[in-house]
Amino acid sequence: MTTTTNMEFTTQYLASIIETAIAGIQYPNLAPRLFDPVRYTLSGGGKRLRPCLTLAAYSALSGDDINNALPQALAIEMFHNFTLLHDDVMDRADLRRGRPTVHRRWNDNVAIISGDTMLTAAVQLLAQCQPKFLPAVLKLFNDTAMEVYQGQQLDMEFEKRQDVSIDEYIDMIRLKTSVLLACACATGAIMAQAAESDINAFYRYGLALGLAFQLRDDWLDTYGDPAVFGKEIGGDIINRKKTWLFITALAEDGDNLREILAGNPDNATLIRQVRQVYDKLELSQRCMDLATKYSTDAAGHLRNIKMPEQAREFFASIAAQSASRTH
Amino acid sequence: MTTTTNMEFTTQYLASIIETAIAGIQYPNLAPRLFDPVRYTLSGGGKRLRPCLTLAAYSALSGDDINNALPQALAIEMFHNFTLLHDDVMDRADLRRGRPTVHRRWNDNVAIISGDTMLTAAVQLLAQCQPKFLPAVLKLFNDTAMEVYQGQQLDMEFEKRQDVSIDEYIDMIRLKTSVLLACACATGAIMAQAAESDINAFYRYGLALGLAFQLRDDWLDTYGDPAVFGKEIGGDIINRKKTWLFITALAEDGDNLREILAGNPDNATLIRQVRQVYDKLELSQRCMDLATKYSTDAAGHLRNIKMPEQAREFFASIAAQSASRTH
Repeated sequence: MTTTTNMEFTTQYLASIIETAIAGIQYPNLAPRLFDPVRYTLSGGGKRLRPCLTLAAYSALSGDDINNALPQALAIEMFHNFTLLHDDVMDRADLRRGRPTVHRRWNDNVAIISGDTMLTAAVQLLAQCQPKFLPAVLKLFNDTAMEVYQGQQLDMEFEKRQDVSIDEYIDMIRLKTSVLLACACATGAIMAQAAESDINAFYRYGLALGLAFQLRDDWLDTYGDPAVFGKEIGGDIINRKKTWLFITALAEDGDNLREILAGNPDNATLIRQVRQVYDKLELSQRCMDLATKYSTDAAGHLRNIKMPEQAREFFASIAAQSASRTH
Repeated sequence: MTTTTNMEFTTQYLASIIETAIAGIQYPNLAPRLFDPVRYTLSGGGKRLRPCLTLAAYSALSGDDINNALPQALAIEMFHNFTLLHDDVMDRADLRRGRPTVHRRWNDNVAIISGDTMLTAAVQLLAQCQPKFLPAVLKLFNDTAMEVYQGQQLDMEFEKRQDVSIDEYIDMIRLKTSVLLACACATGAIMAQAAESDINAFYRYGLALGLAFQLRDDWLDTYGDPAVFGKEIGGDIINRKKTWLFITALAEDGDNLREILAGNPDNATLIRQVRQVYDKLELSQRCMDLATKYSTDAAGHLRNIKMPEQAREFFASIAAQSASRTH
C-alpha cells in the first residue's frame, strides 16, 4: 500500500478532493446570474459525506484512480444540495449551515429555478462516464430521486397527522435520507464494475447508515450538547416535529404529551416538560440503542465485501460515528 | 404506403397516441398523493405539439413503429409540463388551460415538489431506450433543459430592464421556447438512427418553428380575435410584458410609449393607446412578416431531409401554421 492509497481512506482527503472539484465545475454562460445561487449553495460546506462514500466505494472495489468516479460523486452532492435548497423554500427555513438560505438571500423564484438547474446539472455530471455504465448509474439515480421526493411528501403529510406509527416513520426516513446514502455507495461500486453482490451489500450498508444517522440526528436535537452540536437544543420539540422520540412518546404516553402541548407553555417549559415524558419512557437510551442497532447492521454488511483493510476500517469507522457523533 | 402510415402524419392521430400513453404512465406508490398534481397537470390537454414532432420525426426517418420513440416523446411532454408548472408558481398564474394552476388548487409546496418529480420522471422516460441511444438523447435533453432554464432566467431579468434589444429578445425566446421544439424533433431523429445531417436539419427546423410560434403568440395577444384566441386580448400590454411588439416600440418610439405608461390609464385606454403606437410603426405587419420569415426558414430546413412525401407535408404544414394560426 502506498501513502496515496492510505490517504484515499480519510474523509479529510476525500472531502478536499470534492471541494476542489466543486470549485472547478463549469456552468453555461448564457444567463450567468442563474448559477450564482448554485455556486452559493454548493460552497456552503457540509461534511460531503455522500460523495466521499462514492469515491471510497469506488476505490475500495477497483483500486483505480478515484477521479474516474468523481463526476458521479459530484452528481450525488449536487442532487443532495438541490433537495436542501427546495426543502428550505418549502420549510421557510431562514438559515442553512449558518448562512441565509437562497430564498432568503434572493427570493422564492430564484430558489425554485436554481434548484431545477441543479437537478439537471446533477444528471449532466452523472452522465460523464463511459456509456457502458450510464444505464445502471442513471437508473439507480432516478429511482433514488423518486424515493427522496416520496419521503419528503410523507414527511409533509406526517406534519398534519397524529397517528404516525414508528414503522411509517422509519419508512419515511429510509426514503428521505437513507436511499441517497445507499445510492452514493452503490454508485461507486457500479463505477468499479463490482459484482452485483458487492453493489447490493454497499447499498444495504448505506441504507442502515442513513437510518443510524437520522436517529442520531433526532437524538442530538433533544439531548445534544449545544456547544458541540452548533445549534440550539429542542428545536424539534418547539416545532412539534414528528421525530422518533415524539412519535414514540405519542404512542406510549400520548395523553400526557397532548396535555402538555395543549397548555401552550413557553418554549423553555415546553422542552423541559416534553423531556420529562421522554425520560419517563427512557427514550434517550432507547433511541441511542436503535441508532446503534442500525450502525451495527451497517457494519455487518461490510463483512461480505472483499476490500483492502484500510477501506474496511474507513467504512466501519463511518458506521460507528453515525450512532455516536456529537454534531 | 399503407393507411396506417398516412395516419401517422396527422396531428390528431399522433396526439391521440400521446393522450393514451400519458393516461397509462405508471408512478411509484409509496406516497401516492405526490403524483396527483402530476396526473392533473398532464391531463390538462394542450396541443401535444412537442411529442407529436418526436413521433413524426422518428417515423419519417425510420419508417418503423412509432411506439419505439414513445417514451422519449412522453419525456419531452413531461419536461414541458414541468416547466409550465414551475413557471406558473413563479408568475403567480391562477389559470392554465382554463383550470386552476397546481399552486392554486393545492399550494406552492405541492407545486414545487411535484414539479421536481416530473423532471425526474421525464429523465426516467427518456432512459427507456436501447442503451446505444441513451448517451445522445440524454445529452441533448440535459443541454436543452439548461438552455430552457437560462431562457426563463433572462425572461425574468428582462422584466426589470427597459433597454432589452430585439437581438436579446430573439435569443431569449430561442432558449425559452425554441430549443425544446428543436430537441423534440432531433430526439425522434436520433431514435431513428438518422445521419448527423438529418438530426441537425430537424434541430434547425424546430428552432425556426419555435421562433415563428412565439412571435405569432406575441402578435395574437394584441391582434388576435378573442372569440377564436380563447382569451382576452391585450394581456401582454396590461402587464407591460417585454414582447417583440413592446420592445420594438420602446426602441423606435420609446418617449411616446413611456409617456402613455406613465399616465397610468385604465386598461382599455392603455391597450388602445399602445396599439396606436404599434400601428404608427406598422408593428402588426412587421411582426407577422418576421414570424413568416422564421416559418419559411423552418420549411427550408426540410428540403435537405430525405423522407416520405406525407411526412414532408406534415412538417411543412406545421411550419405554415406556426405563423398563421389563430389560436
